[in-house]
Amino acid sequence: MATYGINDIESWERFYRANFINSLTGFKSVNLIGSVNGAGQPNLGIFSSIVHIGSNPPLIGYINRPVNAAPHTMANIEATGVYTINHINTSFVQKAHQTSAKYEFGISEFDEVGLTPEYRDGIIAPYVKESSIKYALSLQEVIPIKLNNTFLVIGKVISIQIDEAIVSEDGFLHLDKANSICSNGLDGYYTTELIERYQYAKPGIKPQKLN
Amino acid sequence: MATYGINDIESWERFYRANFINSLTGFKSVNLIGSVNGAGQPNLGIFSSIVHIGSNPPLIGYINRPVNAAPHTMANIEATGVYTINHINTSFVQKAHQTSAKYEFGISEFDEVGLTPEYRDGIIAPYVKESSIKYALSLQEVIPIKLNNTFLVIGKVISIQIDEAIVSEDGFLHLDKANSICSNGLDGYYTTELIERYQYAKPGIKPQKLN
Repeated sequence: MATYGINDIESWERFYRANFINSLTGFKSVNLIGSVNGAGQPNLGIFSSIVHIGSNPPLIGYINRPVNAAPHTMANIEATGVYTINHINTSFVQKAHQTSAKYEFGISEFDEVGLTPEYRDGIIAPYVKESSIKYALSLQEVIPIKLNNTFLVIGKVISIQIDEAIVSEDGFLHLDKANSICSNGLDGYYTTELIERYQYAKPGIKPQKLN
Repeated sequence: MATYGINDIESWERFYRANFINSLTGFKSVNLIGSVNGAGQPNLGIFSSIVHIGSNPPLIGYINRPVNAAPHTMANIEATGVYTINHINTSFVQKAHQTSAKYEFGISEFDEVGLTPEYRDGIIAPYVKESSIKYALSLQEVIPIKLNNTFLVIGKVISIQIDEAIVSEDGFLHLDKANSICSNGLDGYYTTELIERYQYAKPGIKPQKLN
Protein backbone atom coordinates (compact mmCIF):
# COMPACT_ATOMS: atom_id res chain seq x y z
CA MET A 1 0.00 0.00 0.00
CA ALA A 2 1.19 3.48 -0.88
CA THR A 3 0.01 6.52 1.07
CA TYR A 4 -0.64 9.88 -0.58
CA GLY A 5 -1.33 12.90 1.63
CA ILE A 6 -2.98 16.19 0.74
CA ASN A 7 0.40 17.74 -0.15
CA ASP A 8 1.01 14.95 -2.68
CA ILE A 9 -2.47 15.36 -4.16
CA GLU A 10 -2.08 19.13 -4.49
CA SER A 11 1.31 18.71 -6.17
CA TRP A 12 -0.01 16.40 -8.92
CA GLU A 13 -0.29 17.61 -12.52
CA ARG A 14 -3.84 18.74 -13.28
CA PHE A 15 -4.94 15.89 -15.59
CA TYR A 16 -3.22 13.24 -13.45
CA ARG A 17 -5.14 14.52 -10.42
CA ALA A 18 -8.43 14.67 -12.34
CA ASN A 19 -8.00 11.05 -13.50
CA PHE A 20 -7.00 9.85 -10.01
CA ILE A 21 -9.72 11.62 -8.00
CA ASN A 22 -12.43 10.77 -10.54
CA SER A 23 -11.49 7.09 -10.23
CA LEU A 24 -11.18 7.20 -6.46
CA THR A 25 -14.94 7.62 -6.00
CA GLY A 26 -15.51 4.20 -7.59
CA PHE A 27 -17.70 2.97 -10.43
CA LYS A 28 -20.36 5.43 -11.50
CA SER A 29 -23.71 5.54 -13.17
CA VAL A 30 -23.12 7.18 -16.56
CA ASN A 31 -26.03 8.69 -18.42
CA LEU A 32 -27.04 11.08 -21.17
CA ILE A 33 -29.11 14.08 -20.08
CA GLY A 34 -31.48 15.40 -22.75
CA SER A 35 -32.77 18.96 -22.60
CA VAL A 36 -34.13 21.69 -24.84
CA ASN A 37 -33.48 25.42 -24.82
CA GLY A 38 -36.10 28.19 -24.94
CA ALA A 39 -36.01 28.11 -28.75
CA GLY A 40 -36.73 24.38 -28.79
CA GLN A 41 -33.23 23.28 -29.83
CA PRO A 42 -32.25 19.91 -28.28
CA ASN A 43 -29.08 19.29 -26.26
CA LEU A 44 -27.49 16.06 -25.07
CA GLY A 45 -24.67 15.72 -22.55
CA ILE A 46 -22.93 12.88 -20.72
CA PHE A 47 -22.98 12.94 -16.90
CA SER A 48 -21.45 10.50 -14.42
CA SER A 49 -22.56 12.22 -11.21
CA ILE A 50 -26.14 10.94 -10.95
CA VAL A 51 -27.13 10.29 -7.33
CA HIS A 52 -30.24 8.82 -5.71
CA ILE A 53 -31.75 11.33 -3.28
CA GLY A 54 -34.93 9.51 -2.26
CA SER A 55 -37.67 7.16 -3.47
CA ASN A 56 -40.79 8.78 -1.99
CA PRO A 57 -41.03 11.27 -3.58
CA PRO A 58 -38.76 9.90 -6.34
CA LEU A 59 -35.89 12.43 -6.32
CA ILE A 60 -32.68 12.11 -8.34
CA GLY A 61 -29.79 14.55 -8.38
CA TYR A 62 -26.71 15.24 -10.45
CA ILE A 63 -23.69 17.49 -9.97
CA ASN A 64 -23.34 20.23 -12.59
CA ARG A 65 -19.85 21.65 -13.03
CA PRO A 66 -19.24 25.42 -12.76
CA VAL A 67 -21.38 27.39 -15.23
CA ASN A 68 -18.45 28.51 -17.39
CA ALA A 69 -17.27 24.85 -17.79
CA ALA A 70 -20.66 23.24 -18.51
CA PRO A 71 -23.25 25.86 -19.33
CA HIS A 72 -25.86 24.36 -21.69
CA THR A 73 -27.59 21.55 -19.83
CA MET A 74 -28.29 23.46 -16.62
CA ALA A 75 -29.34 26.61 -18.49
CA ASN A 76 -31.85 24.56 -20.50
CA ILE A 77 -33.17 22.82 -17.39
CA GLU A 78 -33.63 26.14 -15.61
CA ALA A 79 -35.35 27.62 -18.69
CA THR A 80 -37.83 24.79 -19.26
CA GLY A 81 -38.00 22.87 -15.94
CA VAL A 82 -37.97 19.45 -17.65
CA TYR A 83 -35.18 17.07 -18.71
CA THR A 84 -34.54 13.40 -19.41
CA ILE A 85 -31.93 10.96 -18.09
CA ASN A 86 -31.07 8.07 -20.43
CA HIS A 87 -28.99 4.99 -19.57
CA ILE A 88 -26.03 4.38 -21.85
CA ASN A 89 -26.03 0.91 -23.40
CA THR A 90 -23.14 -1.13 -24.73
CA SER A 91 -24.37 -0.52 -28.31
CA PHE A 92 -23.62 3.24 -28.28
CA VAL A 93 -20.80 3.88 -25.78
CA GLN A 94 -18.56 5.66 -28.29
CA LYS A 95 -21.37 7.99 -29.44
CA ALA A 96 -22.24 8.76 -25.83
CA HIS A 97 -18.61 9.62 -25.02
CA GLN A 98 -18.48 11.96 -28.03
CA THR A 99 -21.25 14.16 -26.52
CA SER A 100 -18.59 15.37 -24.04
CA ALA A 101 -16.92 17.43 -26.83
CA LYS A 102 -17.47 21.17 -26.43
CA TYR A 103 -20.09 21.96 -29.06
CA GLU A 104 -21.49 25.48 -29.38
CA PHE A 105 -24.81 26.44 -27.78
CA GLY A 106 -27.68 25.53 -30.10
CA ILE A 107 -25.76 22.70 -31.81
CA SER A 108 -27.56 19.38 -31.32
CA GLU A 109 -25.25 16.67 -30.03
CA PHE A 110 -27.87 14.18 -31.28
CA ASP A 111 -27.02 15.16 -34.87
CA GLU A 112 -23.29 15.43 -34.25
CA VAL A 113 -22.83 11.98 -32.69
CA GLY A 114 -25.61 10.06 -34.46
CA LEU A 115 -28.20 9.40 -31.77
CA THR A 116 -31.95 9.88 -32.23
CA PRO A 117 -34.08 12.36 -30.27
CA GLU A 118 -37.48 10.95 -29.31
CA TYR A 119 -40.41 12.96 -27.91
CA ARG A 120 -42.99 11.01 -25.93
CA ASP A 121 -45.97 11.48 -23.64
CA GLY A 122 -45.96 15.26 -23.65
CA ILE A 123 -42.39 15.57 -22.30
CA ILE A 124 -40.81 18.57 -24.08
CA ALA A 125 -37.21 17.39 -23.54
CA PRO A 126 -35.88 14.72 -25.90
CA TYR A 127 -35.26 11.14 -24.85
CA VAL A 128 -32.53 9.08 -26.52
CA LYS A 129 -34.42 6.60 -28.71
CA GLU A 130 -31.57 4.05 -28.57
CA SER A 131 -31.60 3.88 -24.74
CA SER A 132 -33.31 0.93 -23.04
CA ILE A 133 -34.05 2.70 -19.72
CA LYS A 134 -34.91 6.40 -19.56
CA TYR A 135 -36.95 8.78 -17.49
CA ALA A 136 -38.11 12.38 -17.41
CA LEU A 137 -37.73 14.73 -14.46
CA SER A 138 -39.31 17.95 -13.29
CA LEU A 139 -36.76 20.35 -11.80
CA GLN A 140 -37.26 20.78 -8.04
CA GLU A 141 -34.21 22.65 -6.80
CA VAL A 142 -30.73 23.82 -7.81
CA ILE A 143 -28.48 23.89 -4.74
CA PRO A 144 -25.23 25.88 -5.17
CA ILE A 145 -22.12 24.21 -3.72
CA LYS A 146 -20.03 27.24 -2.83
CA LEU A 147 -16.90 25.19 -2.03
CA ASN A 148 -16.10 24.85 -5.76
CA ASN A 149 -18.92 26.66 -7.62
CA THR A 150 -20.69 23.45 -8.67
CA PHE A 151 -24.41 22.72 -8.30
CA LEU A 152 -26.57 19.87 -7.06
CA VAL A 153 -29.51 19.78 -9.50
CA ILE A 154 -32.48 17.81 -8.12
CA GLY A 155 -35.44 16.60 -10.16
CA LYS A 156 -38.56 14.57 -9.45
CA VAL A 157 -39.15 11.56 -11.72
CA ILE A 158 -42.38 12.18 -13.63
CA SER A 159 -42.28 9.52 -16.36
CA ILE A 160 -40.32 6.28 -16.94
CA GLN A 161 -39.79 4.40 -20.23
CA ILE A 162 -38.53 0.85 -19.73
CA ASP A 163 -38.65 -2.63 -21.20
CA GLU A 164 -40.93 -4.58 -18.85
CA ALA A 165 -38.79 -7.71 -19.24
CA ILE A 166 -36.06 -6.29 -17.02
CA VAL A 167 -38.39 -5.37 -14.11
CA SER A 168 -38.39 -8.00 -11.33
CA GLU A 169 -41.45 -8.90 -9.29
CA ASP A 170 -40.12 -6.84 -6.36
CA GLY A 171 -39.28 -3.77 -8.47
CA PHE A 172 -35.54 -4.47 -8.81
CA LEU A 173 -34.29 -3.70 -12.34
CA HIS A 174 -31.87 -6.08 -14.07
CA LEU A 175 -29.63 -3.34 -15.44
CA ASP A 176 -27.08 -5.82 -16.79
CA LYS A 177 -29.74 -7.53 -18.90
CA ALA A 178 -30.73 -4.07 -20.21
CA ASN A 179 -27.08 -3.60 -21.31
CA SER A 180 -26.69 -0.52 -19.11
CA ILE A 181 -23.04 0.25 -18.47
CA CYS A 182 -21.10 2.02 -15.73
CA SER A 183 -18.03 4.23 -15.88
CA ASN A 184 -14.81 4.89 -14.01
CA GLY A 185 -12.79 8.08 -14.02
CA LEU A 186 -13.27 10.44 -16.94
CA ASP A 187 -13.17 8.01 -19.84
CA GLY A 188 -13.46 4.33 -18.83
CA TYR A 189 -16.64 2.34 -19.59
CA TYR A 190 -17.57 -1.08 -18.17
CA THR A 191 -20.05 -3.91 -18.44
CA THR A 192 -21.13 -5.66 -15.23
CA GLU A 193 -21.93 -9.12 -13.95
CA LEU A 194 -24.17 -9.88 -10.95
CA ILE A 195 -22.40 -11.37 -7.94
CA GLU A 196 -25.46 -11.68 -5.71
CA ARG A 197 -28.49 -9.99 -4.20
CA TYR A 198 -28.78 -10.23 -0.41
CA GLN A 199 -31.84 -10.06 1.83
CA TYR A 200 -32.55 -7.07 4.08
CA ALA A 201 -29.91 -7.28 6.83
CA LYS A 202 -30.78 -7.67 10.51
CA PRO A 203 -28.45 -7.69 13.53
CA GLY A 204 -27.17 -11.14 14.48
CA ILE A 205 -28.44 -12.91 11.33
CA LYS A 206 -26.06 -13.82 8.51
CA PRO A 207 -27.45 -12.27 5.30
CA GLN A 208 -29.12 -14.75 2.98
CA LYS A 209 -28.91 -14.68 -0.79
CA LEU A 210 -32.05 -13.56 -2.60
CA ASN A 211 -33.34 -15.89 -5.28
CA MET B 1 -41.40 -0.23 -23.84
CA ALA B 2 -43.76 0.38 -20.94
CA THR B 3 -44.46 3.89 -19.67
CA TYR B 4 -44.99 4.66 -15.99
CA GLY B 5 -46.18 8.14 -14.99
CA ILE B 6 -45.98 9.86 -11.64
CA ASN B 7 -49.43 8.53 -10.64
CA ASP B 8 -48.21 4.97 -11.23
CA ILE B 9 -45.02 5.58 -9.25
CA GLU B 10 -46.92 7.08 -6.32
CA SER B 11 -49.36 4.13 -6.29
CA TRP B 12 -46.60 1.50 -5.98
CA GLU B 13 -46.11 -0.45 -2.74
CA ARG B 14 -43.33 1.12 -0.66
CA PHE B 15 -40.64 -1.57 -1.08
CA TYR B 16 -41.43 -2.08 -4.78
CA ARG B 17 -40.97 1.67 -5.33
CA ALA B 18 -37.74 1.73 -3.30
CA ASN B 19 -36.30 -1.15 -5.36
CA PHE B 20 -37.40 0.40 -8.66
CA ILE B 21 -36.22 3.98 -8.03
CA ASN B 22 -32.94 2.84 -6.48
CA SER B 23 -32.24 0.78 -9.62
CA LEU B 24 -33.35 3.52 -11.99
CA THR B 25 -30.35 5.70 -11.17
CA GLY B 26 -28.03 3.03 -12.56
CA PHE B 27 -24.97 1.25 -11.21
CA LYS B 28 -23.48 2.87 -8.14
CA SER B 29 -20.25 3.15 -6.28
CA VAL B 30 -20.76 1.21 -3.04
CA ASN B 31 -18.46 1.86 -0.11
CA LEU B 32 -18.02 1.48 3.61
CA ILE B 33 -17.76 4.70 5.60
CA GLY B 34 -15.67 4.43 8.78
CA SER B 35 -16.14 6.91 11.61
CA VAL B 36 -15.67 7.23 15.34
CA ASN B 37 -17.86 8.86 17.99
CA GLY B 38 -16.74 11.31 20.66
CA ALA B 39 -15.97 8.40 23.00
CA GLY B 40 -13.70 6.78 20.41
CA GLN B 41 -16.06 3.93 19.50
CA PRO B 42 -15.79 2.94 15.81
CA ASN B 43 -18.72 2.75 13.40
CA LEU B 44 -18.96 1.29 9.89
CA GLY B 45 -21.82 1.78 7.43
CA ILE B 46 -22.49 0.94 3.78
CA PHE B 47 -23.30 3.83 1.43
CA SER B 48 -24.11 3.75 -2.29
CA SER B 49 -24.57 7.49 -2.81
CA ILE B 50 -20.94 8.60 -3.16
CA VAL B 51 -20.58 11.39 -5.72
CA HIS B 52 -17.56 13.19 -7.18
CA ILE B 53 -17.86 16.94 -6.52
CA GLY B 54 -14.51 18.15 -7.84
CA SER B 55 -10.83 17.26 -8.23
CA ASN B 56 -9.12 20.54 -7.29
CA PRO B 57 -9.65 20.73 -4.38
CA PRO B 58 -10.45 16.99 -4.14
CA LEU B 59 -14.06 17.04 -2.90
CA ILE B 60 -16.29 13.98 -2.55
CA GLY B 61 -19.89 13.93 -1.33
CA TYR B 62 -22.44 11.40 -0.16
CA ILE B 63 -26.15 11.59 0.57
CA ASN B 64 -27.08 10.87 4.18
CA ARG B 65 -30.65 9.76 4.78
CA PRO B 66 -32.89 11.61 7.30
CA VAL B 67 -31.34 11.71 10.77
CA ASN B 68 -33.92 9.39 12.34
CA ALA B 69 -33.28 6.73 9.62
CA ALA B 70 -29.46 6.86 9.60
CA PRO B 71 -28.15 8.71 12.63
CA HIS B 72 -24.73 7.32 13.56
CA THR B 73 -22.38 8.02 10.66
CA MET B 74 -23.30 11.68 10.20
CA ALA B 75 -23.35 12.35 13.96
CA ASN B 76 -19.84 10.91 14.24
CA ILE B 77 -18.59 12.91 11.27
CA GLU B 78 -20.02 16.12 12.71
CA ALA B 79 -18.49 15.33 16.11
CA THR B 80 -14.96 14.56 14.91
CA GLY B 81 -14.69 16.12 11.43
CA VAL B 82 -12.87 13.09 9.96
CA TYR B 83 -14.04 9.89 8.25
CA THR B 84 -12.85 7.22 5.84
CA ILE B 85 -14.35 5.82 2.62
CA ASN B 86 -13.35 2.24 1.78
CA HIS B 87 -14.00 0.42 -1.50
CA ILE B 88 -15.83 -2.88 -1.15
CA ASN B 89 -13.99 -5.79 -2.74
CA THR B 90 -15.33 -9.09 -4.03
CA SER B 91 -13.76 -10.88 -1.04
CA PHE B 92 -16.05 -9.28 1.58
CA VAL B 93 -19.34 -8.34 -0.13
CA GLN B 94 -21.53 -10.26 2.29
CA LYS B 95 -19.84 -8.72 5.36
CA ALA B 96 -20.20 -5.25 3.83
CA HIS B 97 -23.92 -5.80 3.19
CA GLN B 98 -24.41 -6.91 6.80
CA THR B 99 -23.27 -3.47 8.07
CA SER B 100 -26.65 -2.17 6.83
CA ALA B 101 -28.41 -3.92 9.75
CA LYS B 102 -29.66 -1.48 12.39
CA TYR B 103 -27.14 -1.89 15.21
CA GLU B 104 -27.38 0.27 18.34
CA PHE B 105 -25.25 3.39 18.74
CA GLY B 106 -21.85 2.45 20.17
CA ILE B 107 -21.92 -1.09 18.73
CA SER B 108 -19.00 -1.62 16.33
CA GLU B 109 -20.11 -3.05 13.01
CA PHE B 110 -16.47 -4.10 12.52
CA ASP B 111 -16.87 -6.63 15.34
CA GLU B 112 -20.38 -7.67 14.34
CA VAL B 113 -19.62 -8.46 10.69
CA GLY B 114 -15.98 -9.54 10.98
CA LEU B 115 -14.00 -6.75 9.34
CA THR B 116 -10.83 -5.21 10.80
CA PRO B 117 -10.46 -1.58 11.86
CA GLU B 118 -7.10 -0.09 10.93
CA TYR B 119 -5.70 3.23 12.16
CA ARG B 120 -3.02 4.84 10.01
CA ASP B 121 -1.10 8.07 9.56
CA GLY B 122 -2.77 9.97 12.36
CA ILE B 123 -6.33 9.60 10.97
CA ILE B 124 -8.63 9.10 13.99
CA ALA B 125 -11.36 7.34 12.00
CA PRO B 126 -10.86 3.64 11.22
CA TYR B 127 -10.07 2.34 7.77
CA VAL B 128 -11.21 -1.14 6.70
CA LYS B 129 -8.00 -3.19 6.66
CA GLU B 130 -9.39 -5.62 4.06
CA SER B 131 -10.13 -2.86 1.52
CA SER B 132 -7.70 -2.36 -1.39
CA ILE B 133 -8.56 1.34 -2.02
CA LYS B 134 -9.43 3.71 0.82
CA TYR B 135 -9.15 7.36 1.70
CA ALA B 136 -9.72 9.76 4.58
CA LEU B 137 -11.72 12.97 4.38
CA SER B 138 -11.97 16.15 6.36
CA LEU B 139 -15.57 17.39 6.66
CA GLN B 140 -16.13 20.61 4.69
CA GLU B 141 -19.89 21.14 4.65
CA VAL B 142 -23.21 19.47 5.42
CA ILE B 143 -25.86 20.81 3.03
CA PRO B 144 -29.47 20.09 4.08
CA ILE B 145 -31.78 18.97 1.25
CA LYS B 146 -35.11 20.26 2.48
CA LEU B 147 -37.13 18.44 -0.20
CA ASN B 148 -36.89 15.16 1.74
CA ASN B 149 -34.80 15.91 4.86
CA THR B 150 -31.63 14.29 3.53
CA PHE B 151 -28.15 15.81 3.55
CA LEU B 152 -25.28 16.22 1.11
CA VAL B 153 -22.15 15.64 3.22
CA ILE B 154 -19.00 16.95 1.51
CA GLY B 155 -15.44 16.11 2.55
CA LYS B 156 -11.99 16.96 1.25
CA VAL B 157 -9.67 14.01 0.58
CA ILE B 158 -6.70 14.33 2.97
CA SER B 159 -5.06 10.89 2.68
CA ILE B 160 -5.23 7.97 0.23
CA GLN B 161 -4.18 4.34 0.79
CA ILE B 162 -3.85 2.36 -2.42
CA ASP B 163 -1.92 -0.47 -4.06
CA GLU B 164 0.43 1.30 -6.51
CA ALA B 165 0.02 -1.52 -9.04
CA ILE B 166 -3.47 -0.33 -9.99
CA VAL B 167 -2.47 3.31 -10.64
CA SER B 168 -1.91 4.04 -14.35
CA GLU B 169 0.71 6.42 -15.66
CA ASP B 170 -1.96 9.06 -16.26
CA GLY B 171 -3.58 8.70 -12.82
CA PHE B 172 -6.46 6.45 -13.93
CA LEU B 173 -7.14 3.68 -11.39
CA HIS B 174 -7.85 0.13 -12.59
CA LEU B 175 -10.71 -0.47 -10.16
CA ASP B 176 -11.56 -3.84 -11.70
CA LYS B 177 -8.03 -5.12 -11.05
CA ALA B 178 -8.39 -3.91 -7.45
CA ASN B 179 -11.56 -6.07 -7.18
CA SER B 180 -13.72 -3.05 -6.38
CA ILE B 181 -17.39 -3.77 -6.99
CA CYS B 182 -20.44 -1.69 -7.83
CA SER B 183 -24.05 -2.01 -6.75
CA ASN B 184 -27.56 -1.69 -8.14
CA GLY B 185 -30.71 -0.97 -6.19
CA LEU B 186 -30.70 -1.72 -2.48
CA ASP B 187 -29.08 -5.15 -2.48
CA GLY B 188 -27.45 -6.14 -5.79
CA TYR B 189 -23.63 -6.33 -6.10
CA TYR B 190 -21.64 -6.60 -9.34
CA THR B 191 -18.18 -7.17 -10.75
CA THR B 192 -17.17 -5.20 -13.85
CA GLU B 193 -15.24 -5.66 -17.06
CA LEU B 194 -13.60 -2.83 -19.03
CA ILE B 195 -15.13 -2.12 -22.43
CA GLU B 196 -12.79 0.71 -23.42
CA ARG B 197 -11.21 4.00 -22.47
CA TYR B 198 -11.66 6.83 -24.99
CA GLN B 199 -9.54 9.90 -25.61
CA TYR B 200 -10.71 13.40 -24.67
CA ALA B 201 -13.52 14.19 -27.15
CA LYS B 202 -13.36 17.10 -29.59
CA PRO B 203 -16.05 18.31 -32.00
CA GLY B 204 -15.85 16.72 -35.44
CA ILE B 205 -13.30 14.04 -34.49
CA LYS B 206 -14.38 10.45 -33.90
CA PRO B 207 -13.15 9.47 -30.40
CA GLN B 208 -10.12 7.20 -30.42
CA LYS B 209 -9.53 4.35 -28.02
CA LEU B 210 -6.88 4.96 -25.37
CA ASN B 211 -4.15 2.38 -25.14
